[in-house]
Amino acid sequence: MKKIKVPNASAFKLGEGFWQRFVKLVQEDVIPYQWEILNDLVPGAEPSHAIKNFKMAAGEMDGEFYGMVFQDSDVAKWLEAVAYSLEAKKDEKLETLADEVIDLIARAQQDDGYLNTYFTVKEPDKRWTNLRDCHELYCAGHMMEAAVAYYEATGKKKLLDVMNRMAKHIDSVIGPEKGKLHGIPGHQEIELALVKMYEATGDSLMLKMAEYFINERGKKPNFFHIEQEKRGGSYHFPLHAFGEAYAQNHLPVREQLALEGHSVRALYMATGMADLARVSGDKTLLDACKVMFDNLIAHRMYITGGVGSTHIGEAFTFDDDLPNDTMYNETCASIALCFFTRAMLQIDLDSRYADAMERALFNTCIAGMSLDGHNFFYVNPLEVWPESSHKDPGKKHVLPVRPAWFGCACCPPNLARLLMSLSKYAYGYDRQAVYVHQYIAGEVTLGERVVHLKTAYPYEGNMLFTLSPGKYAIYLRIPDYVKNSFVLSLNNAPVSYHMEKGYAIIEREWQPSDKLNLTFDIKARRVYPNPRLRENVGRVALMRGPIVYCLEEKDNGHQLNTIALDYRAEINEIWKKDKLSGIYELHAQGSQLIPQESDSQYLDSPPKRVEKSLIFIPYYTWANRGENEMVVWVMDK
Amino acid sequence: MKKIKVPNASAFKLGEGFWQRFVKLVQEDVIPYQWEILNDLVPGAEPSHAIKNFKMAAGEMDGEFYGMVFQDSDVAKWLEAVAYSLEAKKDEKLETLADEVIDLIARAQQDDGYLNTYFTVKEPDKRWTNLRDCHELYCAGHMMEAAVAYYEATGKKKLLDVMNRMAKHIDSVIGPEKGKLHGIPGHQEIELALVKMYEATGDSLMLKMAEYFINERGKKPNFFHIEQEKRGGSYHFPLHAFGEAYAQNHLPVREQLALEGHSVRALYMATGMADLARVSGDKTLLDACKVMFDNLIAHRMYITGGVGSTHIGEAFTFDDDLPNDTMYNETCASIALCFFTRAMLQIDLDSRYADAMERALFNTCIAGMSLDGHNFFYVNPLEVWPESSHKDPGKKHVLPVRPAWFGCACCPPNLARLLMSLSKYAYGYDRQAVYVHQYIAGEVTLGERVVHLKTAYPYEGNMLFTLSPGKYAIYLRIPDYVKNSFVLSLNNAPVSYHMEKGYAIIEREWQPSDKLNLTFDIKARRVYPNPRLRENVGRVALMRGPIVYCLEEKDNGHQLNTIALDYRAEINEIWKKDKLSGIYELHAQGSQLIPQESDSQYLDSPPKRVEKSLIFIPYYTWANRGENEMVVWVMDK
Repeated sequence: MKKIKVPNASAFKLGEGFWQRFVKLVQEDVIPYQWEILNDLVPGAEPSHAIKNFKMAAGEMDGEFYGMVFQDSDVAKWLEAVAYSLEAKKDEKLETLADEVIDLIARAQQDDGYLNTYFTVKEPDKRWTNLRDCHELYCAGHMMEAAVAYYEATGKKKLLDVMNRMAKHIDSVIGPEKGKLHGIPGHQEIELALVKMYEATGDSLMLKMAEYFINERGKKPNFFHIEQEKRGGSYHFPLHAFGEAYAQNHLPVREQLALEGHSVRALYMATGMADLARVSGDKTLLDACKVMFDNLIAHRMYITGGVGSTHIGEAFTFDDDLPNDTMYNETCASIALCFFTRAMLQIDLDSRYADAMERALFNTCIAGMSLDGHNFFYVNPLEVWPESSHKDPGKKHVLPVRPAWFGCACCPPNLARLLMSLSKYAYGYDRQAVYVHQYIAGEVTLGERVVHLKTAYPYEGNMLFTLSPGKYAIYLRIPDYVKNSFVLSLNNAPVSYHMEKGYAIIEREWQPSDKLNLTFDIKARRVYPNPRLRENVGRVALMRGPIVYCLEEKDNGHQLNTIALDYRAEINEIWKKDKLSGIYELHAQGSQLIPQESDSQYLDSPPKRVEKSLIFIPYYTWANRGENEMVVWVMDK
Repeated sequence: MKKIKVPNASAFKLGEGFWQRFVKLVQEDVIPYQWEILNDLVPGAEPSHAIKNFKMAAGEMDGEFYGMVFQDSDVAKWLEAVAYSLEAKKDEKLETLADEVIDLIARAQQDDGYLNTYFTVKEPDKRWTNLRDCHELYCAGHMMEAAVAYYEATGKKKLLDVMNRMAKHIDSVIGPEKGKLHGIPGHQEIELALVKMYEATGDSLMLKMAEYFINERGKKPNFFHIEQEKRGGSYHFPLHAFGEAYAQNHLPVREQLALEGHSVRALYMATGMADLARVSGDKTLLDACKVMFDNLIAHRMYITGGVGSTHIGEAFTFDDDLPNDTMYNETCASIALCFFTRAMLQIDLDSRYADAMERALFNTCIAGMSLDGHNFFYVNPLEVWPESSHKDPGKKHVLPVRPAWFGCACCPPNLARLLMSLSKYAYGYDRQAVYVHQYIAGEVTLGERVVHLKTAYPYEGNMLFTLSPGKYAIYLRIPDYVKNSFVLSLNNAPVSYHMEKGYAIIEREWQPSDKLNLTFDIKARRVYPNPRLRENVGRVALMRGPIVYCLEEKDNGHQLNTIALDYRAEINEIWKKDKLSGIYELHAQGSQLIPQESDSQYLDSPPKRVEKSLIFIPYYTWANRGENEMVVWVMDK
């Protein structure tokens, strides 16, 4: 098992390129806006009450708890995003704000170390009585992640100490020892957070707890049944249609052969398993993760890197079931897929993880946010008919435009923390080598080495690397779509390299003047669904580099379902600087069925087609021009 | 407005042909089986308790009410089917049984005329407090229909008297007068039943009540809100996603431009409106029905005559939204479509009503029952993937095989009463003419005239009529699919006729020796979806006569989604006497995508196709050979 390290956000200076806009939006808009949301300062937005909940828990304000049982996690995710943002760019005002929030959190912690505003304010006698539904461990996990990130960003230990005390409190209540609850979280998150705590503090208790939560899951007798019986059968959320699989408690984790149930839970679990494998060396966990990943890629992932085929339970369904218009494809689930693949790349270097990560990152993740950073999708469909969203109750979750904010505000802050820590996903390093998984312009310090990358990827396919001197290898991921269509040169001359699991490896004594060039063929291409992908037989999609394209009504008129792409058509790439924050449009010839003004739905002869010029735009830019139809998979004719 | 009469079941002697099997099944299997169900005599079946509920209401048994709030209607529908069955075939034992049930019902009636076992047994003080949810008027309506049918079948008035008293009781509680509830039923049914009561008894109170319920619907202030407020907000069923449109209470009936909400409610309402138009002469009701029918045919009806595009609320959604795999298409809704079109044919002779009726009758209605009469579908999909039904909670209502019986047993007895009274749908008559809407072999007495029809339709396209002597016209519906491909001859010589709204009309002085021959071209044909029918663009279906065909996995292997019908292929009709109770199979050349054992869902090149011989079977025979895939709309390639 490999043990590849990832660089912190502080080790990375983002350069000019594709990602600058997104990161700037998060720093300048999303983080400040979210702060206002957390403090209920945005007129018309659903109240968050998250900061007020902490004030009440600290005994500094009267009133009632308000919000979801996991409302605390919004504050945690904001703090984590702030920490990464401070690493990237000093901001005293923001740091002071964060320090004040951390002081408040510390005051909200109870004498015994317990920290959770829902139970402290609303049901103090019900602590730890409903691990399945009530997210105490989940909220603790997010706050641990924030604590580690803030410590790494600022060197300030206050929140880390708070969460250390909370961890010890949890250990006093839950664990394998007699007299403790033999329990697990209903929503995974604390597992991966405890690994971070372990790495930040070196405290082996954190590792022991992470192992316990991972290993305990799926065991018989079922803890969730036991605790529900103890509660007299009451619940906060009813047990889901998927039963125990909803929270991946149907089997011990090493026996789960596919990601099942609630997608975010499943992928947070898998991330925790992979991270734990790395620090504990437990190869059985790595093997289990590989099985789940292989199944995911082959059978359960959308072309956009979306996951979760049904909104009922925001969940996986079964192999090859990938409907375009009823799925969930939560933004958070694709973010979680980035977490999972990041964790796998640290222990099992294989470009397939980075390919899946790239798919999620460039498509579903950034489609989650509007181009102005003010609106967010939770659900990321591959096909939208606005009338269905309004009039078919089975599709009412498929919003045709991004709303401003949600009562359950998981996706926006999750996206913020992802975008503020891209270096963790793009790079890795160890003693022998530096690893490049994603091509993000900028300069990164990887231990004692520095990698500088100049690129407009994925707008263009050229990468120019300069490296700090020394003898070491650089691993460059060759994306699956590139295959052999790449060119590597050093100082304008061919350079020898060898391939290993999708990475081109060049090892040498690097000179300060070395210029390493990598060029991909990223020209637009057709992608066909595997025939087993029931919903899309007879259709085709366009991609350019890692970017999935779609048709929108705004460019192509309505009834996109009647449009076909001519199978012989050339695809032209047109740069549009001022459209949708700068995109390559794809133009191609196609055809469209002529509308029939018949009083019948059923015709005696096939409706005729007329030629039509089609305009495709990147999927991540859809729904930025008001409500309209959209399709990714187009008829292939 | 026309006033065409329909013949009772007693006026009809079914002859040898397509329908004999179905009617025999109902008489010999369904009615006796249903009796056992009503009496909880079937081991393993969900308890009905319906007869026991009446015994308790009569004070002859102790215990608790059990079942749905509308459980009484199962007994009513059974009695109505029995009545039609007795008309067709004397059966003393069955009649004695029915008499005893009617005696029991009479004893369950309260002193003030009230009849409803749920409220009598369970909540006697809550009568008439929840018209929206509690089906008191709905159950009364069904029992009125049974009463009229039983009176017409046997001349026995006992149940008619019971329901007369119940009607008067209702009138004492609900109506326009001060002090009465200004209420309407949450589930329409009593409207059409009251028209039947009026026609059977001549009592104008019945007519007045029917008019009141029709005219009151959709008025402001909203009665359902008023009564809910009076109840302190409690409900039996929560208000539905569709809001007031769920029970068609969103607008006055004459302003409703489409059938909306719960499909059965909507179509029972429309039937009541058309029947009321006929007896009252109110042309505004006829006009409203025409608008709703035109919209239905053009935008909201499946090729199978199924209606109800979503299982959420068993409801209509919006124009041209006809998904193949998530719809409801309840058997009862297609039965209700037969009711509605029957009512329209009595007042507005136009073959389009009979065409829609035929579509529903030969496809969704009879698909509702297994070929052995023991199992029933409520939901009639056009595409089934068994794994979806098992593992996608959004499709769990789409059963891949017919189950034995349901706790909510509406469809089987509804189908029984339809099949036992086919003459009402096939024929009409008035002073000038006899009308033939459906071609069902047998002899029917239409007032003073007798029509005899020998035919194997829809197996074959030949009809041989003999008519009782006299001068009158015969109207013969030419189905929409036949167009001009029919031949009419009298005594083997051409005969002159003229066409009127889809009917061929021959008027003459009929001789006893006259043989009138009508031949349709019913050879298999392709049907194409209107391009606006989003779900089926690029697909084609096969029909032969009125019968819709489908592919089943049993005949064609799995992954039916990968199959295409060759657009050039000839379609061969093969008679299979011993298959699925006797069918014409359709054979044609097509192709199938070659499975790709790739570890990716997304391919660089289009998957290849191989030739394949396809076997289509009638849709109504699907799922009679165990669980398997099925599709109606096949790729057109």
